[in-house]
Amino acid sequence: MSTRRPTLTEIAREANVAVSTVSKVLNGHTDVAPATRRTIEKLIVEHGYRRPRAARRTGRRTDLIDLVMDRLDSAWSLSLLSGVEEVIEEAGLSLVVSSVHNRQSLTRRWVDSLLARGSEGAILVLSGLTEAQRADLERRGLPFVVVDGAGQPPPEVPSIGATNFAGGYAATEHLIGLGHRRIAVIGGPEPLPSTRARIAGYRAALETAGMPADRQLVRYTGFQHEDGLRATAALLELADPPTAIVAGSDQQATGVYEALRRGGRSIPAQVSVVGFDDLAFARWMAPPLTTVRQPLHEMGVAAARTLLRLINGERLESTRIELATELVVRESTAAR
Amino acid sequence: MSTRRPTLTEIAREANVAVSTVSKVLNGHTDVAPATRRTIEKLIVEHGYRRPRAARRTGRRTDLIDLVMDRLDSAWSLSLLSGVEEVIEEAGLSLVVSSVHNRQSLTRRWVDSLLARGSEGAILVLSGLTEAQRADLERRGLPFVVVDGAGQPPPEVPSIGATNFAGGYAATEHLIGLGHRRIAVIGGPEPLPSTRARIAGYRAALETAGMPADRQLVRYTGFQHEDGLRATAALLELADPPTAIVAGSDQQATGVYEALRRGGRSIPAQVSVVGFDDLAFARWMAPPLTTVRQPLHEMGVAAARTLLRLINGERLESTRIELATELVVRESTAAR
Repeated sequence: MSTRRPTLTEIAREANVAVSTVSKVLNGHTDVAPATRRTIEKLIVEHGYRRPRAARRTGRRTDLIDLVMDRLDSAWSLSLLSGVEEVIEEAGLSLVVSSVHNRQSLTRRWVDSLLARGSEGAILVLSGLTEAQRADLERRGLPFVVVDGAGQPPPEVPSIGATNFAGGYAATEHLIGLGHRRIAVIGGPEPLPSTRARIAGYRAALETAGMPADRQLVRYTGFQHEDGLRATAALLELADPPTAIVAGSDQQATGVYEALRRGGRSIPAQVSVVGFDDLAFARWMAPPLTTVRQPLHEMGVAAARTLLRLINGERLESTRIELATELVVRESTAAR
Repeated sequence: MSTRRPTLTEIAREANVAVSTVSKVLNGHTDVAPATRRTIEKLIVEHGYRRPRAARRTGRRTDLIDLVMDRLDSAWSLSLLSGVEEVIEEAGLSLVVSSVHNRQSLTRRWVDSLLARGSEGAILVLSGLTEAQRADLERRGLPFVVVDGAGQPPPEVPSIGATNFAGGYAATEHLIGLGHRRIAVIGGPEPLPSTRARIAGYRAALETAGMPADRQLVRYTGFQHEDGLRATAALLELADPPTAIVAGSDQQATGVYEALRRGGRSIPAQVSVVGFDDLAFARWMAPPLTTVRQPLHEMGVAAARTLLRLINGERLESTRIELATELVVRESTAAR
């Protein structure tokens, strides 16, 4: 990969085709011979070609940035969105927001429509982003940034995350320090990199304290209220139930609270609970939730800034940015 | 006002100017004599002229709809947003989301940039939308719909709201039925039409029950946690404090809970609390919050559908749509 991004003309010369043919491939037209298409796509990806800004390309200003999210129904999405919107607005651009609902995300049609209206680039917050979809975006030369939750991006894909390992470690260390010996952890879905990192942090903290890891105390589930409720109900049925629970999200922690309430266990006198995210409602829970703060707004800001740099043709010093998590101690954790 | 919307040519003919002059006025160009501009603007407003869809006008597809909100930091905004996005996405259009932050909203520059990129129309969720700003949008022929919170729209402005009067009435009637006689209500800001309607509902319910209204029990403040906290602390200092509180939002109700907790009052044994909105966290509060559900997602859906009808040049049977609120009884209210 050269240190400077190549122009359309250079790609065309190397592929031994007309510039218009490269353009057709970039814009998803179908009237290009498959072998030629493959050659061109390979060159586009190898050289890390990026479309110039739409404004310069077509002489008209579109100045649109796309934010694509799995769902628009949690305070989690909103914090990210507000960070992205702040930067995009300051830059004088406009933010197009969409969610993929229950349809398959990022179909070729979706990418086509995004390019047709001259989107400058996209921020993707998708748990189901596949390797093939990412490759498709790259072949079309559209700058994009992935925010955590979006599968395991390969190292060359620009991505923004939080220090999930450190967060899982800090939550567990806090509980160990309070004298807990039976500490359970509820993750998100097992394949999710953020969940894996947090649970690795949990295990590392136990190991540092010389405490054994009990596989029964590790649960994988979704991030919603109901998931926390069910996972906790199952934990309470163990012969030797936990005295502390690290949840995968604040929303999940509300389900942990509910299960403990139904099971007649008081928080934190009988069971301590730690959340993850630090959404606004965490401090209004009863008792106020001790949680690992994820800087979601700041992650949105970082994602948007990174995308703007890519759009401007800048090289990134690092394709991966992780913002620090921080343990916020409130009243849901107490000494054992 | 004629039953059919006039064309640009008809406006030009009536004003005795070239079509390009009308076009200049619509697009905010400054090289039109003030008297001519005023004549044209008057005709545009009088005839209810609306721009044709951008796609047809310029031969290129933009298919953008704008959603402008005061702030992007509450679950309230998110529910509205998700409803709007669902409809816009189904219609094959793209949704541009922006918030006005702390700047003055809807400046001429803002309207210009919206028109420059060919926005088809706008949904406004702004508490500070002035008469002058609305008139400006009308003069530019941009279809728009106002969602509650956005000041008191005059009857001819298409707007979407909830049955706030009925909501305030139902909450108060519920508490009266439980035997409460000292019922306080905390509104939003006094000038807000939704707040006025809810408090009118509260007063009507008291009157129906033949109960006196005590002005000390009516408070106007913001919708945030801290506002509920402060208002409740003041209510508890009354010589004859309330045994029940109707809050202006669920978020405010979290502050009511906190003030009662600090004041050593248990919910609902000593004080009953009713919220407003029914956001997701209301059912996870301790105790789960009795609240008046506002159909926010559905209000977003209705706003987007109404805007699409305006964009398509349809006439509305009614410019004002109010969706029903509904009392959701949980565990924060009990018999006195």
